[in-house]
Amino acid sequence: MSAVLSRTETLSLLSLSGACVGILANTFHGDGEPLFASLAFSGIAFAFSYSLIRWLGDAFMRAGLKGRDMSKKHQVEIPETMGAVCAVVYLLVIIVFIPFPFYKDIVAATSGGGNRDLVLQVQEVETGRFLHRFPHSKLASYLSAILSLQVVVLLGIGDDLFDIRWRHKVLIPAFASIPMLIVYFVDFGITKIVVPVPLRAYLGELFDLGWLYYAYMAAIAIFCPNCINILAGINGIEVSQSIVIALLILLNDALYLSPFTPYPHPATDSHLFSVYLLLPFIGVSLALWCHNWYPAKVFVGDTYCYFAGMVFAVVGILGHFSKTLLLLFVPQIFNFVYSAPQLFHLVPCPRHRLPRFNARTGLLEASTAQFKKPLRRPIAEAMKVLHRLRLLRVETNEAGEVVESSNFTLLNLWLVWFGPKREDRLATEILAMQLVCGLLGLFVRHRLALWIFTQDNL
Amino acid sequence: MSAVLSRTETLSLLSLSGACVGILANTFHGDGEPLFASLAFSGIAFAFSYSLIRWLGDAFMRAGLKGRDMSKKHQVEIPETMGAVCAVVYLLVIIVFIPFPFYKDIVAATSGGGNRDLVLQVQEVETGRFLHRFPHSKLASYLSAILSLQVVVLLGIGDDLFDIRWRHKVLIPAFASIPMLIVYFVDFGITKIVVPVPLRAYLGELFDLGWLYYAYMAAIAIFCPNCINILAGINGIEVSQSIVIALLILLNDALYLSPFTPYPHPATDSHLFSVYLLLPFIGVSLALWCHNWYPAKVFVGDTYCYFAGMVFAVVGILGHFSKTLLLLFVPQIFNFVYSAPQLFHLVPCPRHRLPRFNARTGLLEASTAQFKKPLRRPIAEAMKVLHRLRLLRVETNEAGEVVESSNFTLLNLWLVWFGPKREDRLATEILAMQLVCGLLGLFVRHRLALWIFTQDNL
Repeated sequence: MSAVLSRTETLSLLSLSGACVGILANTFHGDGEPLFASLAFSGIAFAFSYSLIRWLGDAFMRAGLKGRDMSKKHQVEIPETMGAVCAVVYLLVIIVFIPFPFYKDIVAATSGGGNRDLVLQVQEVETGRFLHRFPHSKLASYLSAILSLQVVVLLGIGDDLFDIRWRHKVLIPAFASIPMLIVYFVDFGITKIVVPVPLRAYLGELFDLGWLYYAYMAAIAIFCPNCINILAGINGIEVSQSIVIALLILLNDALYLSPFTPYPHPATDSHLFSVYLLLPFIGVSLALWCHNWYPAKVFVGDTYCYFAGMVFAVVGILGHFSKTLLLLFVPQIFNFVYSAPQLFHLVPCPRHRLPRFNARTGLLEASTAQFKKPLRRPIAEAMKVLHRLRLLRVETNEAGEVVESSNFTLLNLWLVWFGPKREDRLATEILAMQLVCGLLGLFVRHRLALWIFTQDNL
Repeated sequence: MSAVLSRTETLSLLSLSGACVGILANTFHGDGEPLFASLAFSGIAFAFSYSLIRWLGDAFMRAGLKGRDMSKKHQVEIPETMGAVCAVVYLLVIIVFIPFPFYKDIVAATSGGGNRDLVLQVQEVETGRFLHRFPHSKLASYLSAILSLQVVVLLGIGDDLFDIRWRHKVLIPAFASIPMLIVYFVDFGITKIVVPVPLRAYLGELFDLGWLYYAYMAAIAIFCPNCINILAGINGIEVSQSIVIALLILLNDALYLSPFTPYPHPATDSHLFSVYLLLPFIGVSLALWCHNWYPAKVFVGDTYCYFAGMVFAVVGILGHFSKTLLLLFVPQIFNFVYSAPQLFHLVPCPRHRLPRFNARTGLLEASTAQFKKPLRRPIAEAMKVLHRLRLLRVETNEAGEVVESSNFTLLNLWLVWFGPKREDRLATEILAMQLVCGLLGLFVRHRLALWIFTQDNL
């Protein structure tokens, strides 16, 4: 990877940034929509991340943040943890974005020469922009979201630097969710859920989960980052799956914000909140994607996976659509459940489970785990059943003992089903599958949910 | 440094933590004061940082974060950037502290099953605790303070990792001040200052600085971290000067919160805000101090200096006492002004300006800069004047040309004045001087300010 941008790249990025700055200036001086500002900021975020990834590659290598791509013929070292660059750009951008969606509705004056606070009530009138400006009370939520993202980036960088143990890694998003949950507690504090119709006879229409609701939110926050971190191992898969999920959430948001939706809708603010956080995320992720797609010139690092997952968790939790969010994570959930036997060491787990690179054909094949000691009976039998269901490839010796199986990941299973593939082909197919699952999920959410709830809130 | 805590240390830290958890539980269940909670959290922060510094020392060395102490006979390598550990503990603690000072005054209900927001007005009564609970509107300020601190820590770690250039370093606090300034703009937006009496004839009683006020706040935020970073180079000086400044600010806060002050006072909230941010800071700093004081077992890293300076900047700016704050930075301001000729390369600046260790005597001596090329005439003359004023030690050759001078730092000047000293003795004397200056500053603030302002706001 060249550390300098080519002439074409420089010109394109400069003109993109120029156009975006123009839109921003217009939005700020005129009375434009924060949505345009958000788009412009996303463009700037893309240009910045793209350039910084190129400029900082060498510095990262010198600082020891580098890795070897094991699925290539020539395994050169390339910079690692580049997701941290994107995350920092993203954080700065969403901070600078704050004045656009929030108007002043509390203005207290200090004299500056100390602390004689005189309260001035400024007559700020809403100029018919109910759709795109947030009430002041949303500011605390927004800030808590940024705080959670910053904590996850901070701890993620710690993880990439010190390579901490798996059982500690899992807790990183848990720590990061603390600011969000605490501000939720202070600011909002509602822990009631709507009960599905079949259960209403027992629980009533609303059920107060109490502290369990916080446990649920923490679980979402722990789950999203970790399950993106698990569906990894081939070039570009971490970034592209995050981009696909972000686009699907945006599609769902668009359903609430489109001119066809009754307006003002009670969920408008929540979905705008989500759009404002996702657009710049897509901006920085695309910049990373350009360098991380096959053949990768940089690695994203655990930081990116935590960061991306946390963006989704924050958006889902503070936007109050965490169940919808889970519908968009179906491939990740499948991969997590499918991986569980190896993650929890029911079945021996090799150090790396990524697909095996066959240097002769240049294709990826399903990687395998060899079992030197015979497996316990029920586990071996269960694996044979999975084999018969075509959910695993198992090799047995003449005594009928399981001696080898494909590793328990979605990527390997895909290779078992459809045979060896080139790395980018595999990534593309997985992403297409994810897109289809996500669209189905949204369909289920808005069409079929009426069977168990009294109304779709669209 | 042993990576395990001794039996005595373990017992002491455990009993300290136990006591603090007891106080917290009491504060949370009963109706205790957030001030006690803050004290308890500071104890826990101390215990955590103390243990983590010991446990993580080896991991930091392995990750390449290590340095050699140049002022010792046996220069062993010790862990560097340990301030980052303290900063992360501090950030988690002040986030977890949020529910204690903030009560719910806006409660909006969501049904959980989507977004049907029903607004419930909860009848929350103030139980006579006007002193120690914040109104909800302070939450955004508090969160923006945490955001700024997180950004400075994030970028500070980047600095310690990549060792970025001096002219870029200076901008780290500028970036970090963005969240605070933006939330100030959105939330508060007052840019008027009280004009001193002699100028009122020209400017009126209040003068609106407009965007200059933001520039002023940014300047404070850039100045505080960098000037702590400059007054460095001997064991323990960065941490101890920060602890002294924190104690002086606390003393100033106490003047506003003591039972003798008329109550409720308009500045009460600002000073409570400052106390809540400073107590845990003192907790983590003391833990670092135990390991960084002569002979140092860890180095603090630039991260700590930025972090400490930013804590003061945040407290001063959001508490509206930035001018008072500057009175407590007199030795740092002197050191900065005194260093300016070397920092801005009017006089050649060697790579390191810390005092020179004399291995024979075991004492520190003023370090010097040699000038191979003759200096420009006016600069040489100015240096000779400084020499005559005893503000520099200058060596001239037979032609009367300046060939050597002591380096332009407060530490070297002190050694020029009072002769060679052991490292800890030098640190102690500088700290004592700083304490005296600070107390004088507070006296000036509250007794002499009446000469130019119509009232002391105490």
